[in-house]
Amino acid sequence: MSSTFGESLKLSIFGQSHGAAIGMTLDGIPAGLPVNMDELQAFLNRRAPGQNHWSTPRKEDDRPEFLSGLLDGYTCGAPIAAVIYNNNTRSGDYANLADCPRPGHADYTAQVKYGGFQDAAGGGHFSGRLTAPLCIAGGLCKQWLEQMGIRIGAHIDTIDGCSDNLFDPMAPQLEAVGQDFPVLDAQAGEKMKARIAAARSQGDSVGGCIECAIIGLPVGIGEPMFGGIESRIAQIVYGIPAVKGVEFGAGFHVASMTGSENNDNYTMAEGKIRTATNNAGGILGGISNGMPVLFRVAMKPTPSISAAQQSVSLSAMASRELAVKGRHDPCIVPRAVPVVEAAAAIAIYDLILSNTQTSRRK
Amino acid sequence: MSSTFGESLKLSIFGQSHGAAIGMTLDGIPAGLPVNMDELQAFLNRRAPGQNHWSTPRKEDDRPEFLSGLLDGYTCGAPIAAVIYNNNTRSGDYANLADCPRPGHADYTAQVKYGGFQDAAGGGHFSGRLTAPLCIAGGLCKQWLEQMGIRIGAHIDTIDGCSDNLFDPMAPQLEAVGQDFPVLDAQAGEKMKARIAAARSQGDSVGGCIECAIIGLPVGIGEPMFGGIESRIAQIVYGIPAVKGVEFGAGFHVASMTGSENNDNYTMAEGKIRTATNNAGGILGGISNGMPVLFRVAMKPTPSISAAQQSVSLSAMASRELAVKGRHDPCIVPRAVPVVEAAAAIAIYDLILSNTQTSRRK
Amino acid sequence: MSSTFGESLKLSIFGQSHGAAIGMTLDGIPAGLPVNMDELQAFLNRRAPGQNHWSTPRKEDDRPEFLSGLLDGYTCGAPIAAVIYNNNTRSGDYANLADCPRPGHADYTAQVKYGGFQDAAGGGHFSGRLTAPLCIAGGLCKQWLEQMGIRIGAHIDTIDGCSDNLFDPMAPQLEAVGQDFPVLDAQAGEKMKARIAAARSQGDSVGGCIECAIIGLPVGIGEPMFGGIESRIAQIVYGIPAVKGVEFGAGFHVASMTGSENNDNYTMAEGKIRTATNNAGGILGGISNGMPVLFRVAMKPTPSISAAQQSVSLSAMASRELAVKGRHDPCIVPRAVPVVEAAAAIAIYDLILSNTQTSRRK
Amino acid sequence: MSSTFGESLKLSIFGQSHGAAIGMTLDGIPAGLPVNMDELQAFLNRRAPGQNHWSTPRKEDDRPEFLSGLLDGYTCGAPIAAVIYNNNTRSGDYANLADCPRPGHADYTAQVKYGGFQDAAGGGHFSGRLTAPLCIAGGLCKQWLEQMGIRIGAHIDTIDGCSDNLFDPMAPQLEAVGQDFPVLDAQAGEKMKARIAAARSQGDSVGGCIECAIIGLPVGIGEPMFGGIESRIAQIVYGIPAVKGVEFGAGFHVASMTGSENNDNYTMAEGKIRTATNNAGGILGGISNGMPVLFRVAMKPTPSISAAQQSVSLSAMASRELAVKGRHDPCIVPRAVPVVEAAAAIAIYDLILSNTQTSRRK
Repeated sequence: MSSTFGESLKLSIFGQSHGAAIGMTLDGIPAGLPVNMDELQAFLNRRAPGQNHWSTPRKEDDRPEFLSGLLDGYTCGAPIAAVIYNNNTRSGDYANLADCPRPGHADYTAQVKYGGFQDAAGGGHFSGRLTAPLCIAGGLCKQWLEQMGIRIGAHIDTIDGCSDNLFDPMAPQLEAVGQDFPVLDAQAGEKMKARIAAARSQGDSVGGCIECAIIGLPVGIGEPMFGGIESRIAQIVYGIPAVKGVEFGAGFHVASMTGSENNDNYTMAEGKIRTATNNAGGILGGISNGMPVLFRVAMKPTPSISAAQQSVSLSAMASRELAVKGRHDPCIVPRAVPVVEAAAAIAIYDLILSNTQTSRRK
Repeated sequence: MSSTFGESLKLSIFGQSHGAAIGMTLDGIPAGLPVNMDELQAFLNRRAPGQNHWSTPRKEDDRPEFLSGLLDGYTCGAPIAAVIYNNNTRSGDYANLADCPRPGHADYTAQVKYGGFQDAAGGGHFSGRLTAPLCIAGGLCKQWLEQMGIRIGAHIDTIDGCSDNLFDPMAPQLEAVGQDFPVLDAQAGEKMKARIAAARSQGDSVGGCIECAIIGLPVGIGEPMFGGIESRIAQIVYGIPAVKGVEFGAGFHVASMTGSENNDNYTMAEGKIRTATNNAGGILGGISNGMPVLFRVAMKPTPSISAAQQSVSLSAMASRELAVKGRHDPCIVPRAVPVVEAAAAIAIYDLILSNTQTSRRK
Repeated sequence: MSSTFGESLKLSIFGQSHGAAIGMTLDGIPAGLPVNMDELQAFLNRRAPGQNHWSTPRKEDDRPEFLSGLLDGYTCGAPIAAVIYNNNTRSGDYANLADCPRPGHADYTAQVKYGGFQDAAGGGHFSGRLTAPLCIAGGLCKQWLEQMGIRIGAHIDTIDGCSDNLFDPMAPQLEAVGQDFPVLDAQAGEKMKARIAAARSQGDSVGGCIECAIIGLPVGIGEPMFGGIESRIAQIVYGIPAVKGVEFGAGFHVASMTGSENNDNYTMAEGKIRTATNNAGGILGGISNGMPVLFRVAMKPTPSISAAQQSVSLSAMASRELAVKGRHDPCIVPRAVPVVEAAAAIAIYDLILSNTQTSRRK
Repeated sequence: MSSTFGESLKLSIFGQSHGAAIGMTLDGIPAGLPVNMDELQAFLNRRAPGQNHWSTPRKEDDRPEFLSGLLDGYTCGAPIAAVIYNNNTRSGDYANLADCPRPGHADYTAQVKYGGFQDAAGGGHFSGRLTAPLCIAGGLCKQWLEQMGIRIGAHIDTIDGCSDNLFDPMAPQLEAVGQDFPVLDAQAGEKMKARIAAARSQGDSVGGCIECAIIGLPVGIGEPMFGGIESRIAQIVYGIPAVKGVEFGAGFHVASMTGSENNDNYTMAEGKIRTATNNAGGILGGISNGMPVLFRVAMKPTPSISAAQQSVSLSAMASRELAVKGRHDPCIVPRAVPVVEAAAAIAIYDLILSNTQTSRRK
């Protein structure tokens, strides 16, 4: 019941890695919003593997077919549905998953949850492949937000402890993120690629961290309590496989700051209200304060590694050694950058649609 | 629209800090679940200020009045509603909030969002006081989970960078958390209290981090994608004021681990399937794997400090100096420990109710 | 889980007939909407029993206490909560309900559903008393709709087969409904009162039908498929006890009309688009077309009658004769008129809030 | 936002009549439920036009392609998605819809609601064609209910005032409904077909009424207030185009019954609790009482008729005469019979999944 997200819009994602197709439906989108297909495809291409030497050669075709909801380049008000047919698989790579779960994957938990009936091939519905339809929906939302002057951009913060520069929390320089490898500092990017190559050659994998910024959000977006920007972004971002941490603004650093250090004082700048610092990451009480929204996402190293690992046979209830074969990404962080942007775009656009406030006290 | 949480159960929280009452409704709870009122009150007392010398003397009465949903000590199947009447306020402490927002609070964002109509006194609906009804609902869910053999406990991990021991991720020692001050290591606790006292004397505040563990969760709880345990716990925990980070298992450390280090290998132990390590924090693909669930929550230092701060006058659109008067907690982390337990209990119990799987392949 | 209604707003109703209090929370209402308490109380008084000789002498006090959400006569953006304390009960009237269910009431179904733990006194959560908090929420929504030029009014169509005039479907004359007894034709009203009195003297009860109209709804309100005006109004109206039928426009008569008879042709009138007839009841494809919305609600005769009836003992699983004692309404239709208006107001106001369409093709 | 239905399951329907494809996603279905594709196709065929001489020759291919959610004949726990590609259209039949709305259709309301951006061809998202994906979801739910011993069946009650026999409310004879023409009394069926043929030759259309029964529902299914069986069935059934009335049990007849006539007294029959009559239609307080559930649905005559009608030009804001060309059903009631069954099956299966009650008082 929970491959569904949203309050004003309703995003529904379906598909298994080796099923006929994966896709999404997006309901509740107003009519008349323009859609640029080339821009959308370019956004999806940032996610697809097999594009660069630093990701897996297993080539996924992320070219969606829109079944409904669009007419002559505009949303028509009816639910938007898009599918991507699966055509490049090697199911032989995934034998034995039902009985010997791979460490770090959802094989075991899904096997038990679904009573032995889950479609385990390729990770089934839990595969990273399902971030493709998330990117379709998010790519569309990104465009609609940009038309409102709201821009979202992310970059790799760290891979395997090797760091990029951070965004300037007062004015994140989204346009400075590299097109080919999503970092601000190209040299840091080269070090990261070297770490990834090293991991690949060792048959191991590395994790990392992604930083995302949202610029131009007007003041007052977000709902109280469980509908705040942090609640919503965290809820959707944790739907991306491998995410193990989400923090906003100064994040976990707040735990060692004092109030006088952490509070963002208000100032006037060019006739607008701003804050002198931005430890809040643009959010107070779950609601936007007009400063850039910033958050970081920790992604664990991909679980599929070549080294022999210990598993169990569910039928025998006994230990088994397991070696995962096949072609695997040693690091999914670079490909996950657009996925994080997509997730944020969906959450923010949903909150924009939910904003019903019109009265203003004179 | 978003002071509401849950899919199978529906929790709705209402109230403003200086309004007539705060409270909650909890719909969708099965009938026949026993409720121990003394145990619930003891749980609520862990949250209330004015209980100890290390929190604010402003005494809140967290004694709820149940209006519906319970009969002779059992849930009766109808929605459960409870209120706490506000009676100990000093509204004079909060003058001027409408025009000069306090840094770090939601004054500014709520003022703009609600067009000038918000009830700003005491922080209104954004006040930490609203964690009391969350604790009523969570305290009830904690009891019902315990009847199923699922236990939740949390402790202070750090205050102002000063650390307690962490839970043993393989077997969190919930019973070892101090009753008076929620830490595992009493000496660390004394250091923390000293830090808090120092902050109080300086008219400043300190932040911290809370670690929470869930023991006894059966395998298979959690829904795919946006309904996973991380998604749900993060969504509700970010509804607690001052939370700026939530991480699971190894959390942000995964960013510098390799796959071979991070993967939890499977083992057999006493005829049961376990993992040799628990970097996953008990969750794979959003679903429980039978190991303890562990997560950490970063809380920023309370924004109300005595020092003069910079604000703006919304009417004049010009800078103003601001001094927050009144009695304030220099650190809310100790009081937030039961709140985090409550939030986790609600999210987990909701997922338990959502678990409709019955078929098992022979 | 389903004493909750709404998509943009969230209405939650709680309480049992003999519990401490009944009430409601209403989340998602924009701030700055004025509330007229006298007008609200007058609306609630239309529902309360004991006001007139044609209803039960059991006097309910429908005076709500607002706990949150309002400030100085305006909504403040936070959830609105209101309670009505129960103080005039005669629980002795309801002995034996747990074992011998009263025919026509929810005693049996709730007893089984809740495993024997339901609060059966007075009908518990299924009592008609729970229409009082529905009227609080609906009374508020009615006021906010009126501020937008949208008016809702209902009258008794029939009682025990004795008919009032119907509204003019082209221009329902809401203001002509009697204040004391809600009919258009006072003489029909007198006949109806006579039928009710006759039923009372026989210890029996009578049913009836209510017609409701909504005037001034702009074109385009309503969502496709399951979110259309009919879907939403029917969903909430069937939450009123005793409702057994809901029809829109020509309703069940459409079954014997031809297309040429039923289609409402379009015309121009004073520069506006209208239809020449209104068999559609103002709704096409679930969406308002600018004509008055009309619907009728069938209400069964109140099940509590004095005559001996046949029941069973659930413990003995054997037949029992049963006589319901106590003071009961011989007809709830007159009191249900404001309840139907309240339900419609909530559904319509929710749809108004959901209307996010802004783009218009040039 | 509202082509989505369900609380425990989530049904999402997409597609426009002349778009690339129509389809549905169904999330929240447990794994391990068998699916019989032949049975499903036979169910869908009952809906498709062009099967018999009494419906339109425009042939729709209702053969769904399942993209996800099923594996080797069983549900796998992941969302189920199915599409039907559109391939037999004559878009020339629908010129001019954007400017001159057809009376009785949703052309006008959707045109205004969507600011001129709606996909109007063939009725767009409001076309009766969208009942095909509803039947896919409902056909699956019907099978799963049958495996639990719950059977759903419907028949034509009336067409153009010409009546079939009604179901026996104490034991609806589902198996007696004709396979070729869904009536109980074949002679009545012949009269109905004659009425339809007469309407066709006149270029007009006729409406009718459908009666539906649910047998074998255990006691206790349904949620209080807005989640009752009537609320849920009505909400989904009103999502079927042309529905203008839904009534349960004795329906609108209750308005002229007394309590002594309407109350269903309890009896013991073969050791089970039953009622002597079934005016309640198997539902008390929104919850099943173990008796057959019965409801009737009124469907208006199809709006597309050949006769000249009056419309307006939206651009000129002036009257226009309009003649609808093309091939149209003179009566959709026979084809709507499986659609009503499908809708009921989805609503009931959703309530079955929501039933979390386990405790029983000893």
